Amino acid sequence: MHAAMWYGTRDVRWEERPDPAIQLPTDAVVRVVAACVCGSDLWTYRGARPPADPHPIGHEFVGVVEETGAAVSTLNAGDFVISPFSISDGTCAHCRRGVTTSCAQLQWYGGRDRDGRVLDGGQGRYVRVPLADGTLVATPGLPDTGQIPALLALSDVLVTGHHAAVSGGAGPGRTVAVVGDGAVGLCAVLASVRLGAERVIAFSSHADRQEVATRFGATDIIAARGDEGAAALHDLLAGEGADAVLECVGNKQSMAQAVASVRPGGTVGYVGVPLGGAELPIQKMFDDNIAVAGGVAPVRPYLPELLADVLAGTLDASAVFDLHLPMEEVAQAYAAMDERRSIKTLLWP
Amino acid sequence: MHAAMWYGTRDVRWEERPDPAIQLPTDAVVRVVAACVCGSDLWTYRGARPPADPHPIGHEFVGVVEETGAAVSTLNAGDFVISPFSISDGTCAHCRRGVTTSCAQLQWYGGRDRDGRVLDGGQGRYVRVPLADGTLVATPGLPDTGQIPALLALSDVLVTGHHAAVSGGAGPGRTVAVVGDGAVGLCAVLASVRLGAERVIAFSSHADRQEVATRFGATDIIAARGDEGAAALHDLLAGEGADAVLECVGNKQSMAQAVASVRPGGTVGYVGVPLGGAELPIQKMFDDNIAVAGGVAPVRPYLPELLADVLAGTLDASAVFDLHLPMEEVAQAYAAMDERRSIKTLLWP
Repeated sequence: MHAAMWYGTRDVRWEERPDPAIQLPTDAVVRVVAACVCGSDLWTYRGARPPADPHPIGHEFVGVVEETGAAVSTLNAGDFVISPFSISDGTCAHCRRGVTTSCAQLQWYGGRDRDGRVLDGGQGRYVRVPLADGTLVATPGLPDTGQIPALLALSDVLVTGHHAAVSGGAGPGRTVAVVGDGAVGLCAVLASVRLGAERVIAFSSHADRQEVATRFGATDIIAARGDEGAAALHDLLAGEGADAVLECVGNKQSMAQAVASVRPGGTVGYVGVPLGGAELPIQKMFDDNIAVAGGVAPVRPYLPELLADVLAGTLDASAVFDLHLPMEEVAQAYAAMDERRSIKTLLWP
Repeated sequence: MHAAMWYGTRDVRWEERPDPAIQLPTDAVVRVVAACVCGSDLWTYRGARPPADPHPIGHEFVGVVEETGAAVSTLNAGDFVISPFSISDGTCAHCRRGVTTSCAQLQWYGGRDRDGRVLDGGQGRYVRVPLADGTLVATPGLPDTGQIPALLALSDVLVTGHHAAVSGGAGPGRTVAVVGDGAVGLCAVLASVRLGAERVIAFSSHADRQEVATRFGATDIIAARGDEGAAALHDLLAGEGADAVLECVGNKQSMAQAVASVRPGGTVGYVGVPLGGAELPIQKMFDDNIAVAGGVAPVRPYLPELLADVLAGTLDASAVFDLHLPMEEVAQAYAAMDERRSIKTLLWP
């Protein structure tokens, strides 16, 4: 088969790889029906952590089960499945509490398992999925092609936005501000609206992203950023900060903007991967009772609730996929996102 | 009158001061019935921030209203009152949301108001209380002398422990661990038990403090601290961390111990004043979805609920006052706490 491989800074290649096969009784092999590129893939792409060897890349995909290992009990060949971006057993103490991203057997697509097996990435024709029962969620039947982008968003981006909104406490009567107008930030707007937030303010300086934020239900847009953005928010809210600020970037400036935008007693819900030197200003947090909650999104336990809404047609984040490409053009997908010509690129096989 | 004045490192003096009088129509003058020394007073005492001029000290007291300004409507001369350690108007947006410590007119005992007036400290014969309606809470009648220590604990220490417990999410079915065996930590144990926590683990290496923690309902005591303490906690909990860890110290080591002791998806509720270089490890928090919530306790809005329990005799933190001294011996009170000969010292006029 073919799959995307990361070779180094801005060097992703579509190349021949061994066909995946069942290696462990808890495995499934999935034929990918759609995949996409994540903002966190861009950190890799830009070479934040250069590899010793090229390795498979990508962790967001949906597909059809081709084959299952002998110990897999909840999935059958032919099932349409959504894969969370992290692999978890579903049975350990942390999974039972809903924190599947801290699973005792946690594994990552494109990484290695404890025995040194290289895991497939999600951007390829086929993927061997370890711990398939704990990881994959099957839809009740086969979806229409038109539903696939909305289902693909459940693999990471929509659920990560939802996790920010839940962690920040978005809900009825609450004013929510979202820092970051990437795909996750836009999904955090959508998730906050779905959770009933009274007012949802999106920080965005790009017309195309403002348009998606508005389509997703943002009530206000602030084009300014940093201290200027926080000041504009306070102006908008009669001098007060937001009840919840959702930090969907992960760098020092975005976290500072989030903390500067929240009201005393409010919460920063954060899901931006803290790779950019993000810091938490503990004295300011202490003085104004600002809570910080969130982290890497445990997608799996959120899926039943969100999947039901997607299948019902009431939840659709597919507008974040503003560029669709054939999978073999994966290098172009990375370049488009890296150069901000695309919010998020969907890859069809 | 006489009151305590802070002159510099380990130099607190009991000396003559002008009698307080009403200066603003929102003031009350209170005759102090009992006061005490706070752990945060010790930071001052030890000279973390040496003063340009000597200033009044102390912020925990109960007393009887002597006189009220013309604009005070909820209090009368003769009322027995509890003062939260911070002064707030009760009417601004933050106060209405219960974050009185971020009040638009926030003032501190022993500090200065915006017009430069020096505020009395709480360790003295009398105190002028600005914004009296927003700040003070009167008891329904005059309490018995025997109730006064338990009422005095409502001025700060018990409510600060309660705030840690609420912020951390202590409640039925939850396992709570408390870092810090000072008076606040011990009160956090008591508050967690009151909130229905299933298991309350106190970190304490001092026999006298272990005894109070046990009396307050701690189910387990761990004498080790730091990484060793966190490891002992994981041993106790079959390899898992606590659902909530209450950080009641405020230095780098104690915060690290708290984060190391909480389970993935759990919360660190913190109330330790972050003066000791405390840091928040954002990458660990992100990876394991550890929330951090709390800050300086907004005592005032908690008082009605907690006061009712104290008056009913079901909530009594007075065991933290293991040394009672006449107020004129305030210097000895500081020395006793500084040298850890006393958990917390109560001062009688």
